[in-house]
Amino acid sequence: MIDFDKQFTEYRQAFEKVLNEFCSNLDCKPQILSDSLKYSLQLGGKRVRPVLMLAVGDLLGIESGKLLNFALALELIHTYSLIHDDLPEMDNDDYRRGKPSNHKVFGIGNAILAGDGLLNTAYSILLGECFKGDNYISAAKYICDCAGINGMISGQSADLLHENDETVDLDTLGFIYENKTSKLIMAALAVPSILCGGRYFSELKFLGKELGFLFQYTDDILDVEGSFENVGKSLGKDSEEGKYTSVRLYGLDGSKVTSDFICANCIKILEGIDGDTDFLKKFAYYVRQRTH
Amino acid sequence: MIDFDKQFTEYRQAFEKVLNEFCSNLDCKPQILSDSLKYSLQLGGKRVRPVLMLAVGDLLGIESGKLLNFALALELIHTYSLIHDDLPEMDNDDYRRGKPSNHKVFGIGNAILAGDGLLNTAYSILLGECFKGDNYISAAKYICDCAGINGMISGQSADLLHENDETVDLDTLGFIYENKTSKLIMAALAVPSILCGGRYFSELKFLGKELGFLFQYTDDILDVEGSFENVGKSLGKDSEEGKYTSVRLYGLDGSKVTSDFICANCIKILEGIDGDTDFLKKFAYYVRQRTH
Repeated sequence: MIDFDKQFTEYRQAFEKVLNEFCSNLDCKPQILSDSLKYSLQLGGKRVRPVLMLAVGDLLGIESGKLLNFALALELIHTYSLIHDDLPEMDNDDYRRGKPSNHKVFGIGNAILAGDGLLNTAYSILLGECFKGDNYISAAKYICDCAGINGMISGQSADLLHENDETVDLDTLGFIYENKTSKLIMAALAVPSILCGGRYFSELKFLGKELGFLFQYTDDILDVEGSFENVGKSLGKDSEEGKYTSVRLYGLDGSKVTSDFICANCIKILEGIDGDTDFLKKFAYYVRQRTH
Repeated sequence: MIDFDKQFTEYRQAFEKVLNEFCSNLDCKPQILSDSLKYSLQLGGKRVRPVLMLAVGDLLGIESGKLLNFALALELIHTYSLIHDDLPEMDNDDYRRGKPSNHKVFGIGNAILAGDGLLNTAYSILLGECFKGDNYISAAKYICDCAGINGMISGQSADLLHENDETVDLDTLGFIYENKTSKLIMAALAVPSILCGGRYFSELKFLGKELGFLFQYTDDILDVEGSFENVGKSLGKDSEEGKYTSVRLYGLDGSKVTSDFICANCIKILEGIDGDTDFLKKFAYYVRQRTH
């Protein structure tokens, strides 16, 4: 049996070494542009997507050296999406990870550019990987499609559209959660599979979808039950804004039961994969039980 | 001698055929996301970057079929940059090409997502090209770097930083113009060269830089002398906002003389390239003399 926390920390640290090197070498003018990029990249966070990518790499026998640039690009995409999502005209969040959001520090204009800059830089990294062969191009393209207008951006757009919509049903909520949250997690899990020619591609994609839902459902629960100290962002916002969430649709208890069900589904998917899936199973339980 | 207008129109129509097909096939949910992308892509515009790319393709013997997806991606990047640049916290423009800016039609949140969506889709197109070989990857990466934090985005950032800065000097103005405007034009000119292994790469890069400056200088002149009917966006804004432009630095006559000088430089660069550079020379004169 592995020590989950220790293994999580090892993956996170391996990733953050690369991230910190990237930030040290980040050199662009004017200063405020590089400062704003680094600020959001170094706000901390659990580095869920990189950790998952490295864990699946271990499962499939893909060495971390082949994955770390993909993990970096994916984290840049995730970070850009948070910066733009926090903007007043989007989700309007003044805090992120217990610290002021990018636009509260650098202003809205610079925050828009910081997001654009991170997204573009992610593709500079991914295009650099493309020279290594067709599997690398396929992996880069998969990340791109998960992040795009049939992926994360469509989820953000639907989220914005239904912000104050009292008629949101389970299908719409599913569309938003799958695209807004699951897609980048699917990308994290799929990249190692694509690099080795597609081993367990469908299973890992499905696992990513379910883990994304689990994150989103537990997020909805934490918005009601969590504390600012633990979660690091404004809470109770969803109900204040009349936003439809799983808690609104199922009630708090219903959301918890559904989360248990999704978590069990993650375990079932992992049972169908040969190899040591212990860490990934514990990861699902960790998401279900998280307090931040 | 070629008929410049006729040739320009041919290039533009060849590109717009591909763009219109792209828009017809654009299918993403929710509807407002695809509507907002199509709105800005189909606002018209001169399609300068695609036209230049196809013209250099003809000069170097690269068939348009190899270039059109690069041209499409570049136009998507250019269009995203206009949407984000028009936002109130950026350049704050209510009009673009004589029609309401994206955010005036779809709201600020959707305009941010439309820009993000165009940028991401550009890379989906470019990554699709990457399977064709290393030169294609290099060309895609070159566009990416021109658009990025050491390219266009750094120019936008510097532009924002110096918005109301009375101390802007020629070096800073040069940095802004080179990055904000020249870089994507350099990309347009360089792609055909990269695809054929780098023929006249330095010359075409230099020409792109100069043409970008020429566009920017004539833009500054039109901001003083143009009419809304011709230019299709709010004019006189620069001086109203106390924005530093070439006209502020050189005066109106000084800007015109400098524009003539830059235009002559473009011709000189083209004299150093073998083959039929007639269209590109006329292009430089066209930019110098444009009224919109």
